[in-house]
Amino acid sequence: MSDKTPLNIGMIGYGFMGRAHSNAYCKVGNFFDTKYQPVLKAACARSQESVQAFADNWGYETIETDWRALLERDDIDAVDICVPNNLHREIALAAADAGKMILCEKPLAMDTAEGEEMCQAVEAAGVANMVWYNYRRVPAVSLAKQLIDEGRLGKIFHYRSVFLQDWTISEDLPQGGEALWRLDVDAAGSGVTGDLLAHCIDTAIWLNGGISTVSAMTETFIKERTHQLTGEVQKVGIDDACAFLARFENGSLATFESTRYARGHKALYTLEINGEHASISWDLHDLHRLSYFDHRDDSLVRGWRSIHVTDGDMPYMDKWWVPGLQIGYEHTFVHQVADFLESLETGEPASPTFRDALETQKICDAVLDSAQSGQWTEI
Amino acid sequence: MSDKTPLNIGMIGYGFMGRAHSNAYCKVGNFFDTKYQPVLKAACARSQESVQAFADNWGYETIETDWRALLERDDIDAVDICVPNNLHREIALAAADAGKMILCEKPLAMDTAEGEEMCQAVEAAGVANMVWYNYRRVPAVSLAKQLIDEGRLGKIFHYRSVFLQDWTISEDLPQGGEALWRLDVDAAGSGVTGDLLAHCIDTAIWLNGGISTVSAMTETFIKERTHQLTGEVQKVGIDDACAFLARFENGSLATFESTRYARGHKALYTLEINGEHASISWDLHDLHRLSYFDHRDDSLVRGWRSIHVTDGDMPYMDKWWVPGLQIGYEHTFVHQVADFLESLETGEPASPTFRDALETQKICDAVLDSAQSGQWTEI
Amino acid sequence: MSDKTPLNIGMIGYGFMGRAHSNAYCKVGNFFDTKYQPVLKAACARSQESVQAFADNWGYETIETDWRALLERDDIDAVDICVPNNLHREIALAAADAGKMILCEKPLAMDTAEGEEMCQAVEAAGVANMVWYNYRRVPAVSLAKQLIDEGRLGKIFHYRSVFLQDWTISEDLPQGGEALWRLDVDAAGSGVTGDLLAHCIDTAIWLNGGISTVSAMTETFIKERTHQLTGEVQKVGIDDACAFLARFENGSLATFESTRYARGHKALYTLEINGEHASISWDLHDLHRLSYFDHRDDSLVRGWRSIHVTDGDMPYMDKWWVPGLQIGYEHTFVHQVADFLESLETGEPASPTFRDALETQKICDAVLDSAQSGQWTEI
Amino acid sequence: MSDKTPLNIGMIGYGFMGRAHSNAYCKVGNFFDTKYQPVLKAACARSQESVQAFADNWGYETIETDWRALLERDDIDAVDICVPNNLHREIALAAADAGKMILCEKPLAMDTAEGEEMCQAVEAAGVANMVWYNYRRVPAVSLAKQLIDEGRLGKIFHYRSVFLQDWTISEDLPQGGEALWRLDVDAAGSGVTGDLLAHCIDTAIWLNGGISTVSAMTETFIKERTHQLTGEVQKVGIDDACAFLARFENGSLATFESTRYARGHKALYTLEINGEHASISWDLHDLHRLSYFDHRDDSLVRGWRSIHVTDGDMPYMDKWWVPGLQIGYEHTFVHQVADFLESLETGEPASPTFRDALETQKICDAVLDSAQSGQWTEI
Repeated sequence: MSDKTPLNIGMIGYGFMGRAHSNAYCKVGNFFDTKYQPVLKAACARSQESVQAFADNWGYETIETDWRALLERDDIDAVDICVPNNLHREIALAAADAGKMILCEKPLAMDTAEGEEMCQAVEAAGVANMVWYNYRRVPAVSLAKQLIDEGRLGKIFHYRSVFLQDWTISEDLPQGGEALWRLDVDAAGSGVTGDLLAHCIDTAIWLNGGISTVSAMTETFIKERTHQLTGEVQKVGIDDACAFLARFENGSLATFESTRYARGHKALYTLEINGEHASISWDLHDLHRLSYFDHRDDSLVRGWRSIHVTDGDMPYMDKWWVPGLQIGYEHTFVHQVADFLESLETGEPASPTFRDALETQKICDAVLDSAQSGQWTEI
Repeated sequence: MSDKTPLNIGMIGYGFMGRAHSNAYCKVGNFFDTKYQPVLKAACARSQESVQAFADNWGYETIETDWRALLERDDIDAVDICVPNNLHREIALAAADAGKMILCEKPLAMDTAEGEEMCQAVEAAGVANMVWYNYRRVPAVSLAKQLIDEGRLGKIFHYRSVFLQDWTISEDLPQGGEALWRLDVDAAGSGVTGDLLAHCIDTAIWLNGGISTVSAMTETFIKERTHQLTGEVQKVGIDDACAFLARFENGSLATFESTRYARGHKALYTLEINGEHASISWDLHDLHRLSYFDHRDDSLVRGWRSIHVTDGDMPYMDKWWVPGLQIGYEHTFVHQVADFLESLETGEPASPTFRDALETQKICDAVLDSAQSGQWTEI
Repeated sequence: MSDKTPLNIGMIGYGFMGRAHSNAYCKVGNFFDTKYQPVLKAACARSQESVQAFADNWGYETIETDWRALLERDDIDAVDICVPNNLHREIALAAADAGKMILCEKPLAMDTAEGEEMCQAVEAAGVANMVWYNYRRVPAVSLAKQLIDEGRLGKIFHYRSVFLQDWTISEDLPQGGEALWRLDVDAAGSGVTGDLLAHCIDTAIWLNGGISTVSAMTETFIKERTHQLTGEVQKVGIDDACAFLARFENGSLATFESTRYARGHKALYTLEINGEHASISWDLHDLHRLSYFDHRDDSLVRGWRSIHVTDGDMPYMDKWWVPGLQIGYEHTFVHQVADFLESLETGEPASPTFRDALETQKICDAVLDSAQSGQWTEI
Repeated sequence: MSDKTPLNIGMIGYGFMGRAHSNAYCKVGNFFDTKYQPVLKAACARSQESVQAFADNWGYETIETDWRALLERDDIDAVDICVPNNLHREIALAAADAGKMILCEKPLAMDTAEGEEMCQAVEAAGVANMVWYNYRRVPAVSLAKQLIDEGRLGKIFHYRSVFLQDWTISEDLPQGGEALWRLDVDAAGSGVTGDLLAHCIDTAIWLNGGISTVSAMTETFIKERTHQLTGEVQKVGIDDACAFLARFENGSLATFESTRYARGHKALYTLEINGEHASISWDLHDLHRLSYFDHRDDSLVRGWRSIHVTDGDMPYMDKWWVPGLQIGYEHTFVHQVADFLESLETGEPASPTFRDALETQKICDAVLDSAQSGQWTEI
């Protein structure tokens, strides 16, 4: 690996996403032949003890307890923002100002206004930027994109997507704090809309183009929860569930739904797209498979095909094992890092950029507005 | 069979549903031990040649070419209305007036006003009445009803249902006439809303109670089609696709969608219901299976259960074969006839009555209104 | 139906198969346009009370309590043998002697010697004959046959088939008598080999040609059971489970297995066949689907196709409903009757004839011999 | 990671398994809290260029081109044997003699005699030893083991397992050489028996105890192939397909089958085990799921459960992500390394040891003997 160009990473945060990204930085060089090699230069978080343990576990060379100090370091090339949503904007603006590349967790921001400010900052600074909508890099989803772009589906009539979970059904679950900030509206901005539907929307607009108008409803089933930090019972400000109708710019219709109250589903992110000639569906619970139906098949043997996306001619899969042997969730991040590193070589930005992710932010905002107003809302 | 009480059937219409119902009248006595035995007394349709062929095939004793003549006959106990939707009201009113029992194809009527008139007529006449929402009698769906009524799911959070087909995608398909009247708004009243979503709604309110408000969108992808009867290219008045959000009276949220433009799906009617403790899902393409997830299971072996609904302790299944051997679509009608015959014995009406079906009609109307107005619409 | 030629049926037996066949005779004319129309002329069984109830239920015109009397009647054209295996030979020989057509339940006989005698009898008498290996007439299985015959699979390498049940695991289950004669070796001849593997073998040789040699093992897990008729605890003589390796004449290899001790499987009859270019698999628990894999597909979208065998261009399916609406187990018998009736018109025997079924008998005998001797056994 | 005890690895070979193991050594410390930390000290292979590239890619500190030189180094604690089967014995004997721990790829040896010699060597030397039967460490398979050991299945009646592939169907595929040594009998010892069935057997005896007797058949469909090294058309000495019947010591019956000629299956390793109370099945193509059927469930909701093995209370899964997010093939090796490292702490050998793996070797030998002799063969 000695002849590779190091790319020094400064990681801010050490939670679930901090782990997933760190793993990706570690692995990418073993499997992808890129010019740049991520180097785990520094990990940063407020708790010295926690961040030191994290750094030891992953091999970060140094730690910081103040992200501003991290940004001042000359030995940091790229900053990875893995903190709650309400901190994205401030760090990103400062990082852009410091000339650092930025890899930011999704959703981009608390709202469109923040997101627009962030886009302008990175664009003005001219720094490479990317948002971690990792599901674009599931090989089966990348394959879907390829099939759609090749025109195999023909004119698109329908899109539908859900992201169903069941982990917040208990009334005893508190909100807020380290592990549960996603339930605290002040930290997260919204509930399932920004956390889960944002994934559905990002993939949808990548596969099927822009959304023009939405009609939404949201619900908060459990109205009050104890806050972990304050210890007090407080109003729950997030949406526990959200569903919306949409029309795409290409004339197709869509339904989207997300909830954390769908018993039996841990992380059931599904999508389906129906075209004139063919249809595709996919399911995160079996992420290594893609379902495909082609009406042009001989009618006697026409049916949904279950494609085991593990062959070398399928997206990213020549890097891994042999046909039939599946990869998992964490590989989506490895692929995204690989594409980011490649973008540094080619100068062609790796998607989704901040600007790409802003589009999802706008739709999330429109969805929440529509749920509030009870009106169809234009994007 | 000699000691059974005959129930003389007068069938109006001879299409797809005419066949399905005739088969049910023929078979019910072989499998169900009922006091009443349907007798195929008369078949009625305008074309003498067609109705004679139909009568010969199924063993109807006589034919009529005018439904008014049929209603005047003393040897007819019950009338089965299997004609296009725009004829339901007139025939039903006259049949009630003639004191006949009425079994009417779904949807009940062209709209709520017609339906209300029909309800009042049968109730005033005091005649037994039923609407052919046959999917309540899929054993797996009946089992779902039983599990829900037993409280196994707990508080309900979500309901979702789709009915997807793909048979009208070609622009070359004409509208109207004998086989394609469902595409002609004058005969059908609406497109997928009355034809397919009505099924989804009927099952939904049976399983989960009343719907209070909806937000819908509809689309007609192909704007003009040749009319089979006139030979002219005419505007298409039906909805090719319809999706809506809904809130149930019990506080649960729902999404519904139907289309005839979902490539790969012939008749994919699915439903899923998520409760606090358990969830259920079902799919018409494998109608003999029910999926069930129970969170109270030991966590190590917790998962969706695929129940092969063929055992003798499951609804209706003691009448058929042995465990493992599935029944099919047509059996739903046999079950409905059996329940109707039993209702004549017990005096307890077989569901859905006209009044029950009127509820679905109201929701369909609200859905179409909402799609037109772009507003949330109360039922 | 008046212009059809009646075919007067004399049914011997009134159990599970008696019901399945009676239903088929009743329905075939409603769905298939055949010259001959089965007429339920007489039902025959030793118990007058039981056979009268059966006749009443299905509409048999008369009853007999002695099958010899039935055979003497001039108004019987065809005899349907639905009694335990140990009675097949005697009745068939007498029926052939009486010039009756014979439809005999499977397996054909208690052993090859009996079967050979029966073949010679029907061939000498020149009477139409057929054995009820009904699974050939599952539309998905018929479609498999068509695809294989068209050469789509190329050279065949492998065949595998199982028939798994779980209904005899309890030690408390008795053997013998009316409902449980299949567990009594004197009535059944063998256990799963003749009851279940015979189905697997019949389909296999139909699809893939002759079997040349086998190596088998059998097991009787529960050694003694109470006999229902004698009330005594008696040795169990049947095989509870049987598995065998086989080589087909075309050079392909096979494994077969059957048991009544596979917890979780009610009637899981599966088959799979792997060819040079394509493979097929099928499963009785979802009998309306066929799985098909074609290696010649574009590699990016290559996968197992789940074919919902409900379209009008698929075997038998133009007679039933519309695409997407499945039929069930009982329809296989309707199809077999339809094919038998058609064979009377064309003079081309409907398969499997007694002679065809004798081939399965020979293989069953070889399997049981091999299990006994511990040696590979030639057919 | 500084306070961990290093375990210096000497890797011999750099093929598919060399990559899989190297990845496991790299990752284990990030996810498992073990006292020992593998250090990639040296990679060894005959081709200096190839091994240098491999070492660079994975971060091995040094290279060797002679495995005897590697064994002489004091800075190597454990040797990982990832070379063709015909080299296992010689290297293992020398490594044991040099006092190195040994992690050896499967199958252990070319035959039982070699394997016995290797067992005696490591036992005499007292060195830690393990064979890479990685599928024991699929979390779903580990969970199956746990459920069986807890007695949930009750008495076992049946076991069945297949390993089906389709990559050698083309006649144009050569044999021998670097990538295709598995097709060369001199390097591999056998075909699918040692390569694929060995996996099935190892898991089977782990889950269900010893096998006492087998009856097998093998086939070589393509009789001659060009040898990559000699360039000459040579007789194919391996078995392309192998199936066998077996009896376990606990009285259960089994079928096993493997082939590389099952079109449509890339690496379909499946297993099923049927007990008195419950059954389990698993499939490598969806390795993150376990199917479980429990007859003791309430009969109305009894069915096969599809368990998504991603929760924290399931084997190994607390180390990875969150419920619903699957891991893949490569993680089995990480788990095996973790268990090996833990065994160094506890002194309790990690399974399967050489001695454990010898049992599989004996069964493979018996299978091949039986296929040759046509006789049932005792283990």
